[in-house]
Amino acid sequence: MNNLLKGKKGIIFGALNDKSIAWKVAEKAYEQGAEFVLTNVPVSLRFGNLHELAEKTGSQIIAADATSVKDLENLFDKTLEIFGGKIDFVLHSIGMSLNVRKGRTYDNLNYEYYQKTIDISALSFHKMLQVAKKKDAINEWGSVVALSYIAAQRTLYGYNDMADAKSILESIARSFGYIYGREKKIRINTISQSPTMTTAGSGVKGIGALIDFTERMSPLGNATADECADYTITLFSDLTRKVTMQNLYHDGGFSSMGMSLRAMHQYNKSFDEPEDIEQPENLD
Amino acid sequence: MNNLLKGKKGIIFGALNDKSIAWKVAEKAYEQGAEFVLTNVPVSLRFGNLHELAEKTGSQIIAADATSVKDLENLFDKTLEIFGGKIDFVLHSIGMSLNVRKGRTYDNLNYEYYQKTIDISALSFHKMLQVAKKKDAINEWGSVVALSYIAAQRTLYGYNDMADAKSILESIARSFGYIYGREKKIRINTISQSPTMTTAGSGVKGIGALIDFTERMSPLGNATADECADYTITLFSDLTRKVTMQNLYHDGGFSSMGMSLRAMHQYNKSFDEPEDIEQPENLD
Amino acid sequence: MNNLLKGKKGIIFGALNDKSIAWKVAEKAYEQGAEFVLTNVPVSLRFGNLHELAEKTGSQIIAADATSVKDLENLFDKTLEIFGGKIDFVLHSIGMSLNVRKGRTYDNLNYEYYQKTIDISALSFHKMLQVAKKKDAINEWGSVVALSYIAAQRTLYGYNDMADAKSILESIARSFGYIYGREKKIRINTISQSPTMTTAGSGVKGIGALIDFTERMSPLGNATADECADYTITLFSDLTRKVTMQNLYHDGGFSSMGMSLRAMHQYNKSFDEPEDIEQPENLD
Amino acid sequence: MNNLLKGKKGIIFGALNDKSIAWKVAEKAYEQGAEFVLTNVPVSLRFGNLHELAEKTGSQIIAADATSVKDLENLFDKTLEIFGGKIDFVLHSIGMSLNVRKGRTYDNLNYEYYQKTIDISALSFHKMLQVAKKKDAINEWGSVVALSYIAAQRTLYGYNDMADAKSILESIARSFGYIYGREKKIRINTISQSPTMTTAGSGVKGIGALIDFTERMSPLGNATADECADYTITLFSDLTRKVTMQNLYHDGGFSSMGMSLRAMHQYNKSFDEPEDIEQPENLD
Repeated sequence: MNNLLKGKKGIIFGALNDKSIAWKVAEKAYEQGAEFVLTNVPVSLRFGNLHELAEKTGSQIIAADATSVKDLENLFDKTLEIFGGKIDFVLHSIGMSLNVRKGRTYDNLNYEYYQKTIDISALSFHKMLQVAKKKDAINEWGSVVALSYIAAQRTLYGYNDMADAKSILESIARSFGYIYGREKKIRINTISQSPTMTTAGSGVKGIGALIDFTERMSPLGNATADECADYTITLFSDLTRKVTMQNLYHDGGFSSMGMSLRAMHQYNKSFDEPEDIEQPENLD
Repeated sequence: MNNLLKGKKGIIFGALNDKSIAWKVAEKAYEQGAEFVLTNVPVSLRFGNLHELAEKTGSQIIAADATSVKDLENLFDKTLEIFGGKIDFVLHSIGMSLNVRKGRTYDNLNYEYYQKTIDISALSFHKMLQVAKKKDAINEWGSVVALSYIAAQRTLYGYNDMADAKSILESIARSFGYIYGREKKIRINTISQSPTMTTAGSGVKGIGALIDFTERMSPLGNATADECADYTITLFSDLTRKVTMQNLYHDGGFSSMGMSLRAMHQYNKSFDEPEDIEQPENLD
Repeated sequence: MNNLLKGKKGIIFGALNDKSIAWKVAEKAYEQGAEFVLTNVPVSLRFGNLHELAEKTGSQIIAADATSVKDLENLFDKTLEIFGGKIDFVLHSIGMSLNVRKGRTYDNLNYEYYQKTIDISALSFHKMLQVAKKKDAINEWGSVVALSYIAAQRTLYGYNDMADAKSILESIARSFGYIYGREKKIRINTISQSPTMTTAGSGVKGIGALIDFTERMSPLGNATADECADYTITLFSDLTRKVTMQNLYHDGGFSSMGMSLRAMHQYNKSFDEPEDIEQPENLD
Repeated sequence: MNNLLKGKKGIIFGALNDKSIAWKVAEKAYEQGAEFVLTNVPVSLRFGNLHELAEKTGSQIIAADATSVKDLENLFDKTLEIFGGKIDFVLHSIGMSLNVRKGRTYDNLNYEYYQKTIDISALSFHKMLQVAKKKDAINEWGSVVALSYIAAQRTLYGYNDMADAKSILESIARSFGYIYGREKKIRINTISQSPTMTTAGSGVKGIGALIDFTERMSPLGNATADECADYTITLFSDLTRKVTMQNLYHDGGFSSMGMSLRAMHQYNKSFDEPEDIEQPENLD
């Protein structure tokens, strides 16, 4: 590999199993020479098989509930101890909505669930940044990445209060990115990833048809979890030091598409008498 | 006037005194033929002079804490009773951050305050929409407007967790706008207003210099509270029926500016030996 | 009506027949008390029936090729003469691509045609603004609107070099909006309108299926030409004085949608064994 | 180095001297294992010292006017010949405005110059893409990058018709990115770089004060040409395969800033009696 992260240390939040984007990031970061601590909530540690990943990458696992400032303080303390010094990168890949899980639609939200959605999926990001900054835990020119989704900009049926959570996640990246950049030269960005068939993603209703649509809309097709991990590596590397406070689409072009020929062709089949929308010789 | 709101009924949240944008909206809506209920939290009713406005516009005041679903239910019930039927427009002009008030910086947030900032400044908007929809309180082609600020897109020092709150406010406008549009033809938008010297705004540190800067950056100058009210009237009128899920900048052009000659000219004066940046004959 | 444009004078470019958005704008502006000059290229004057509209609205027609500075100078001179003074609003509704007409795809452009697309569809806007400003033809707080399309932000198959033209049109609105605002308090905006079945629009291949898709994606449905005219009136009125340099979506919410249930439901029918994507009781 | 471009071949447009971003990209690409052809217009070859760069990186120089399809065809033919096969990356770093050079302001444009600005600074990008595609000159998963500037989104006094050119450049990246992605898996992006003191940039009036302002506004400071080259390498590498049709800000955070404390502090000094806008203990 390219040793892009040689000598760098980090913390990776949110790996559950080998479908997780965070899992792929850990594998790629390891290949690129990084060392890191893996962390997740205790219940995920039980249900997933994070220990395999830890073994494979020579990493330690530290359980932490990312909504608990106390857990985060412990996580950062222990991590600094393990590495005998500061870290260089952090990945935040955390999201959950009880409203989605319990089938509450967006016009019938339970507001306690809502506050939890925000706390788990967005505020946890602020908490980890605030704890890291107070402990001065990240080296200058360090890099922090959180995973987001285009629902922060455009409404998708069924994505529910997770859309609001992603909006606030991206806002935190900007707001904290300003302060952490100004004072410690640390950059903070979000990656807006294609819909991905992770364990979390596969629970969303109708996601199969949506993924078919985005695949046909995106000129390069949907981005996979593996490709997302590759991209994340570039953002952790020293080659992207002046990119900060950005939401970066990693989606095969989907975000810049209004309508593709392939998607329209498929859509058109839904009618009994499809309109003649294409001529293969004259594509554009 | 133009009778743009003749026969329309509504609810106006957030008028405190004659500097408030909501106050101006009430005055203009009245001039345009609308009837409405005024509402604010009990403490604001004591400190402001909303009764003057109520008298002047022939309106009733109903106290409500917009974070309380119960209060909102009562408010909508009574409003429908007063008008003997559904309403046509709602203005949301509510925002408050205890972190700002108590001088907690964004890298030293109190998370209970943060949840309150979100609850008061953003979630209140969802609550009012959810209550309105459950009670089927708004006529088809009704219009809902909330006031936002460019901090939702770009970080301004000192705006603190209100930036996150405005992000989520705009996300709620989109997410609920989809559902309310689809089912009831009701539109929901936010107006992103110039910084304004309201009672709330004047508490922000250094706002004087910021307002000077935005005034010089904006080709038309900052938008006043009065002008914001005019713009809001167009969004409540039947002439904007197909505008929804939008964040609409009302700021004299500020949001589309990178640098104006006037602002740069002033900035340049800050140096002991200013660079020669302009020639009056050759402006652009 | 509301007399929103009482006493205001203007120029309306681009009306061809009663399907044209510019035609509808003329009708509505007339109803709101405005007087205006109608203009189009000589060939369109022959093929359309603009004289009917002129009669109905008591307007004069002045032929002008909007790519000709000389024609534009004549147009403004005569208009100022007709009204005995300056005007208050201008509508630009002009677009044409020879590459589209001649079936040249975007990866096989004829560059002479391309320069013409830009000249007709975008640069004409700059020319009319530059001529107007040099002649000081527009009153303070006047308003200029051009019609755009979301292809300026997101690629749609088949829209071809018109996407580039709309991008530059919106850039001109910003760049000239800064100068005209700063010096004469004149505002310049673009309206990004739903795909519309005008005579121009109906020539685009596959537009029927696209319009079906956008209709189902937009919570309020596509915006019609009539509704676009209503919206344009608000932008010409004095109620929107501080809105400038903006691209304003008038599209029933389409621009803020990622995926609607209705569109996905239809899309899903295109498969032999559709996925179960919805439950009517549990929509969102 | 990291061998990120090992085995990759490319073409680099626009290097003039060692201040040029394209020059830095060539140096970094060479360090990362790439081979490439350098190209520029004949006149630039005379005034610059491109031969030094060619020697240092073992590259050949092929003169080409990027507005000439014929020159571009020759360039691609010779390049494919030199490498005995297809290439993997292209950098477009070309821009020039005669209106700027001749001191024509944006409200007094010469339209022949304007067409040249567009032809040189934007249409050249389409021409190179169209020639490349017709010759099938780029391998699958190849990467094309053009350099842009935030003037495409926000107006800066004095940037003049280059703002329109950058808008259309970014539109071309999207429009062609869709087709080239769909058919050949080739990605096309623009980098929106901080204002940079290149030979081209240093000619812009008042650029010193602007660069001071953006330096203070950007939490990480302005991005240098060197850092831009690093970032470009990541976009040419295989780690960013699903990023396409994007405009990527490389600007130390400037694009996401509304106002920084440092910039406001400096601005504030411009007044005789500065407002007290900061307390060092309470920064944010």
